[in-house]
Amino acid sequence: MIDVYSWPTPNGHKIHIMLEECDLSYRAIPVDIAAGDQFKADFLAISPNNKIPAIVDADGPEGKPIALFESGAILVYLASKVGRFLGESDRQKYQTLQWLMFQMGGLGPMLGQAHHFRIYAPEKIDYAYDRYTNEAKRLYNVLEKQLSQQSYLAGEHYSIADIACFPWTRSAANQGIDWADYPHTKRWFDAINERPAVQRGLKVLADLRKPLTDDKSKDILFGNTQYTKK
Amino acid sequence: MIDVYSWPTPNGHKIHIMLEECDLSYRAIPVDIAAGDQFKADFLAISPNNKIPAIVDADGPEGKPIALFESGAILVYLASKVGRFLGESDRQKYQTLQWLMFQMGGLGPMLGQAHHFRIYAPEKIDYAYDRYTNEAKRLYNVLEKQLSQQSYLAGEHYSIADIACFPWTRSAANQGIDWADYPHTKRWFDAINERPAVQRGLKVLADLRKPLTDDKSKDILFGNTQYTKK
Repeated sequence: MIDVYSWPTPNGHKIHIMLEECDLSYRAIPVDIAAGDQFKADFLAISPNNKIPAIVDADGPEGKPIALFESGAILVYLASKVGRFLGESDRQKYQTLQWLMFQMGGLGPMLGQAHHFRIYAPEKIDYAYDRYTNEAKRLYNVLEKQLSQQSYLAGEHYSIADIACFPWTRSAANQGIDWADYPHTKRWFDAINERPAVQRGLKVLADLRKPLTDDKSKDILFGNTQYTKK
Repeated sequence: MIDVYSWPTPNGHKIHIMLEECDLSYRAIPVDIAAGDQFKADFLAISPNNKIPAIVDADGPEGKPIALFESGAILVYLASKVGRFLGESDRQKYQTLQWLMFQMGGLGPMLGQAHHFRIYAPEKIDYAYDRYTNEAKRLYNVLEKQLSQQSYLAGEHYSIADIACFPWTRSAANQGIDWADYPHTKRWFDAINERPAVQRGLKVLADLRKPLTDDKSKDILFGNTQYTKK
């Protein structure tokens, strides 16, 4: 059994989708980031950076429990555990890893800043708004060029690089992205979105999510179509 | 022979240091990011995200050349190639990987934004200045807590997680950080900085670097003490 401490955000979705793709047994434990659960000592003990997701796998290396944080590390760990979604060869493994790192170091952090300055900042700051909107477009152009040449980011195999990037592109409109400008990326997005495991993963904890702001029009940050107000 | 396409920035330093630590044969090919070299077609072919560093290892998987981009992926590749700096066991490997991901997803991107809004932005924008300065302090607090408990980020073994984080902390002052507040992190920094391979790595391409701005007082972004004006 794997305990996943998480919340239905893009970084949480990555792991929920991966667990569903791998058909692993898991228990999702909500960490309500709007309520500050991520600052509680119990969570900090397994996630010293105060961020979701984190996991505790009772059946870790040498059969002993292991706690891990950072979605990118968890994806590599789970992929190695089940022997899937990293590619078949060492070459494919490293090509997968470089696109996973592209998500971890670029796509995620910069689209996160675009969300912040386009939606959440208390006032519109033109310089920052433009900076991150332009960077979002640049990053989607990188995706588009890659996906114009092959089916998935790391080649013809669906991988943890795709699983990492996909949840961040669910909020394309909020990032200033018009899908009409990125037809290959949209084709890739639709192919992933149609996977049953992806749809199951997107529903994990989704019912718990409350609007992060009082302005309900802003509660589309994560494109969470499964949101149901409690 | 490994060709490394690079420049003496924190992400470049990571790979230069790693190549020196591993005692691998390599050739450093400058990609002058101030002159726009990163947008040239030859470079784009191996680094589709237009960023340094990238490598081409003539002796890749199955003895055939492989091109890789993203510093985090290159570090894992090189560590696996030489069987060092990832820890001894699978457990240590994943603990190393999570701290490498912490650098890739948090420390690097957010300190990069701190550099931008504290030093390079054309005007001071208080909101963004404070946002990234506060995040820098939060991230150093994460380092500090971890390094108060153990010698290196992933345990008692010096690893690619340390090699990834170290170059970003060379510019602590530019990030609003006072080392006096982070004594364990400073002890860790000094221990790494004293390694001969680290000092050799920091000198790679350093003589080529020109000021990125006309204001010479700003040319301490990367803490590049080896800079020599040509």
